[in-house]
Amino acid sequence: MTARKVLLVRGDREYLVSPGEELGTDLGVLEVPEDPQPGQTIETHLGDEFRVRKLRGPDLFHHFERTGAPMVPRDVGLVIGETGVSTGDRVLDAGTGTGVLAASMARAGAAVTTYERDPEFAGVARENMDLAGVVDSVEVRTGDVTEDLETVLGGDPFDVLTLDTGDAPDVVARGPDLLVDGGFLAVYSPFVEDSREVVETARAAGLVDVRTRETIQREFDFDDRGSRPSTAPVGHTGYLTLARSPGGENPP
Amino acid sequence: MTARKVLLVRGDREYLVSPGEELGTDLGVLEVPEDPQPGQTIETHLGDEFRVRKLRGPDLFHHFERTGAPMVPRDVGLVIGETGVSTGDRVLDAGTGTGVLAASMARAGAAVTTYERDPEFAGVARENMDLAGVVDSVEVRTGDVTEDLETVLGGDPFDVLTLDTGDAPDVVARGPDLLVDGGFLAVYSPFVEDSREVVETARAAGLVDVRTRETIQREFDFDDRGSRPSTAPVGHTGYLTLARSPGGENPP
Amino acid sequence: MTARKVLLVRGDREYLVSPGEELGTDLGVLEVPEDPQPGQTIETHLGDEFRVRKLRGPDLFHHFERTGAPMVPRDVGLVIGETGVSTGDRVLDAGTGTGVLAASMARAGAAVTTYERDPEFAGVARENMDLAGVVDSVEVRTGDVTEDLETVLGGDPFDVLTLDTGDAPDVVARGPDLLVDGGFLAVYSPFVEDSREVVETARAAGLVDVRTRETIQREFDFDDRGSRPSTAPVGHTGYLTLARSPGGENPP
Amino acid sequence: MTARKVLLVRGDREYLVSPGEELGTDLGVLEVPEDPQPGQTIETHLGDEFRVRKLRGPDLFHHFERTGAPMVPRDVGLVIGETGVSTGDRVLDAGTGTGVLAASMARAGAAVTTYERDPEFAGVARENMDLAGVVDSVEVRTGDVTEDLETVLGGDPFDVLTLDTGDAPDVVARGPDLLVDGGFLAVYSPFVEDSREVVETARAAGLVDVRTRETIQREFDFDDRGSRPSTAPVGHTGYLTLARSPGGENPP
Repeated sequence: MTARKVLLVRGDREYLVSPGEELGTDLGVLEVPEDPQPGQTIETHLGDEFRVRKLRGPDLFHHFERTGAPMVPRDVGLVIGETGVSTGDRVLDAGTGTGVLAASMARAGAAVTTYERDPEFAGVARENMDLAGVVDSVEVRTGDVTEDLETVLGGDPFDVLTLDTGDAPDVVARGPDLLVDGGFLAVYSPFVEDSREVVETARAAGLVDVRTRETIQREFDFDDRGSRPSTAPVGHTGYLTLARSPGGENPP
Repeated sequence: MTARKVLLVRGDREYLVSPGEELGTDLGVLEVPEDPQPGQTIETHLGDEFRVRKLRGPDLFHHFERTGAPMVPRDVGLVIGETGVSTGDRVLDAGTGTGVLAASMARAGAAVTTYERDPEFAGVARENMDLAGVVDSVEVRTGDVTEDLETVLGGDPFDVLTLDTGDAPDVVARGPDLLVDGGFLAVYSPFVEDSREVVETARAAGLVDVRTRETIQREFDFDDRGSRPSTAPVGHTGYLTLARSPGGENPP
Repeated sequence: MTARKVLLVRGDREYLVSPGEELGTDLGVLEVPEDPQPGQTIETHLGDEFRVRKLRGPDLFHHFERTGAPMVPRDVGLVIGETGVSTGDRVLDAGTGTGVLAASMARAGAAVTTYERDPEFAGVARENMDLAGVVDSVEVRTGDVTEDLETVLGGDPFDVLTLDTGDAPDVVARGPDLLVDGGFLAVYSPFVEDSREVVETARAAGLVDVRTRETIQREFDFDDRGSRPSTAPVGHTGYLTLARSPGGENPP
Repeated sequence: MTARKVLLVRGDREYLVSPGEELGTDLGVLEVPEDPQPGQTIETHLGDEFRVRKLRGPDLFHHFERTGAPMVPRDVGLVIGETGVSTGDRVLDAGTGTGVLAASMARAGAAVTTYERDPEFAGVARENMDLAGVVDSVEVRTGDVTEDLETVLGGDPFDVLTLDTGDAPDVVARGPDLLVDGGFLAVYSPFVEDSREVVETARAAGLVDVRTRETIQREFDFDDRGSRPSTAPVGHTGYLTLARSPGGENPP
C-alpha cells in the first residue's frame, strides 16, 4: 500500500498530493514531506503557505477518480441514516462505481464487500479505497453479484445490502437469505419503473417496511433583499427504496 | 454498565427487553436469557417464537426514551453524509435532546461530546447512550455549551460541530477556533430566521462553503392503478446549514 | 333555470341558500329575499346579521355537490394558466366529474363542451353548472368522448382540450385534428404510467411542446418562533401533461 | 388603436407581425395581409408556407416586450385559480411590470386597474395590453397605488386585489375597505420576510383565510430508460400569499 495522500489547501486552492511528491503551482513549487501531518504548514519555494489536511467524507466526492457520476454526499448520508450502517456492520454493496458509498460506509466502521462488473472501474475503485484509507475494510470484487450469489449466500448474512445496479431485483429477491434479522436493504435508482420493480420484488420476497422515498433539496439564499429558496435548485438524483428483513417468524 | 438491551421480534410485535427480564405479552410470558444472542429464538410459555435482534440506528429513533421530537433517520443521515462523520472523528454536539444524532455519530465511530442544558433530559440521554451501546464514546455534559466555551476551546479542536440549539450562532462565531482545518459545522433549525442568523454568523466568522439546505421528501406509492407520490407526504423537519473551516491561511 | 343561489355569511358560518328560502340556523331563522343582492345584510329573527355573497371560483370547490374528489383551485389555476383559457375560447373537456374545472373555464369566458360517462354524475354536474351561473356556456354531455369522437371531429376545432379520464390517450391521438393551430392540450393524471402513455401518444401524434409537470405545494407557517414550511404539507394531486398543436405546416 | 398583431408560424419559426407588414425571413419575404385570419396560410415569395395564429395566454409571456421578468404562466394560473378571477370581476393590480398577469385576468373577463410606478414601464405595459387585445379592459395607471389609495377607496370595491410590489403591506392593510365581501387578495413575493410582513398585516387588518403557499414544480422526463423527474427542475419563483375579505359582520 502506498503512503496516504493528503490535501494541501490555501484559500480556494486545493491539491491532492502524495507524501514526498514535488508539485508545481502558480504560487511556486511545493515539496510534500514524507510524512505530512494534518494542520502542518508547508511553504512553496516562493514563501506562500499551504496547510495539510486529511480527506473527509465529502472530499471523496470531489477527489475520487470518477468512472461515472459518484453518489452525492446527501444520498450517501440518506443511505447511512436510513439503514443505520455503523461500526461492526457487514455490508454487501453492488454497483461500486466510483466507490463513494462503499468508502463512506467503511469510514463509518463497516466491512464492505462490493461488486463492480466493469474490470477497469473496479480497478479505479480499488485505488479510490486506498485514497479513502479503507483498503482493509472494503473488498472490491470484479463481477456481477447476481452471478456470484451462491458464493455470497454461502457466507455469513449481511447487516445491510446496498444496490445501485440494473439487476437489483435479482438480489432483492434473495434479501431474506442475505440479511440478518432486521437487516436493511437500500436500493438506489433514478427511475420510477425500476423502483417499482424493486418494491414489488421486495414485497413478494417477504421483506417488510418496504418504502420508496424521493428527496428534493434546495439551497436557501440569504441576501440583503431577503431569504428565499435558490432559483437554481438541486435536481433529481434518485429514488431510494428501503426494506427490512422481517424479524423472527412471520406468522402465517 | 447494565447488560445491553435487545429487541424481541415476532411479526409486528417488537419488545425492548433487558437480559434476564421476564415479560408478559398477549402471546404468553417471555423469559429473556442472561446473554441473548442476535438471531436466537425464544419461546413464550405458550410456545410462540420470538427472535432476538440487535438495535440498529433507525431503531434508536423508535426505542430511545424521548425528551422531545428526536431527529429522524433521514436528517441524521444528512448530517453524517454532508459532514462525513466517521471513525476517529472528534465531534462537539450541542442540544443533545433525545440523543439520536449523538448516538448515531458514535456508532459511525466518532467520539462525541454533547451538551444538554436540561439536567433531566441529559440523564435520559445518558440512558439512551447505554441502550445504543455507545456510553464509551459519547460524553453527555449537563449545561449550555456557550457557557462552557472556554473549557471546550482549551482542548483539541473538533472535526465536526453539530448544533441544534437556539444559541447556535454563539458557537458558530467560534467555529474557526473550535474546528480543525477543513472541519465541518452542521446546524439544524426548523426556522428561516434562525438559519439566516447562523449563515450570517458563519460568513462573518470566516467559515467557507456556507450553505443552507432544505429537504423535501415524499414516499412513492406503487399499487395496481399505477405509481405516484404519496398523497400523505413527509412534512418539513428543519433546514440544515453547513459550513467548513477554511483550509490553511486565508490570504487577505 | 332556477333563481341563482347565494351564500349567507357571518364569521365562520356560511350557508348556501336559494332566493325565497327559509333557513333555520343556531342563530335563528333566516328569510332569504327573492332577489338577494351581494353585500346586502339579512337578519335572523333573533337579530343576528348575515351578509349576502356571490360564489367565487374557489367557493365552487366547497359548495358544488360532489361526485368524486373535485379538482383543487390550484390545479384549476394551473390548467387555465398553462393553456391560457380565456374569453371566446372553445374548450372540449372530458371527465367532468364534479365539474369544477368546466365551470371555472366557463367563468373565464370559455364555451365548454364536457363529457361525463356516468349519467348520475352528469346530472349532478349540470346542477353544479347552474349553481356556478354557467349553464349557458357549459354543455354537459352524458357519455364517453372517445365514443363520440366522430361527432366532435365533425364540428369546429377547439382552442383547448382538457382531459381527466383513463382513456385520455385515445383523445390525445386525435389532438391535431381536434385543436386549432397553437391550441393546447392539458391532461391531468395522478399516475406516472398514465402520464407516460399520454406523453408518448402526444409525441407520436405530432403535438409539440409536450411536457409533464408535477407540482408540490406547501403552506408556510409564520408564528412567534419564526417562519417555516408547514409540517403538514399539501399532498400530491396529479401530474399535468401539456402539449400544443403544431403551428402551420410541420416541414418534413 | 392599431390593428391587432398576430403570429406567423412554421415549425419552430414564429414571428409576431402587424397587419400589412412586410417581413424578411430566411425563407423569403412575407407579405402580411391587412386582415390576417387565424388558420390562414401565407406564403413567402419563395413559396414556403406560414400559418396565421392568434396569441394565446402563454404566448404573451414570450411575446410581450419585457420591462423585467414577467410572471410565468404557472403563477398567473395560480393567482387566477386561487382567487377565481373571472368574467365581470373588478380587479385592482399593483406592480404591473410587463403586464402578463393584468392581461391574463382581463382575458378571463375581468376589468383591471393596474398601477405601475415607472412611467416607461407603464408605457410598455400599455402597448402589451394592445398586443393582448385587452386595451378596453385594462387601465394602466402610472404611479404608486399607495399614493393613490384615497382615490381608489372612493370608488367601488374590488373583487380581487393582486399585488407584486415592495409596499404591498400598505395596500393589504386597507384590504377590507378595498374588497367586496368574500373578495380575494393575492400577494406575490420571492422572499420569506416580505411574505411574513404581508401575512401579519393581513391578519391585523382582519382579513381571513390568510395563507402563504410555496410552489415547487418539476418536469418529468420519459425516455427509453424510464420515467423520472427532470434533473433540471424549475426553480423558485415566489411565494403566493392569499387572504379573503371577511363575510358579513365579524362578531367580536
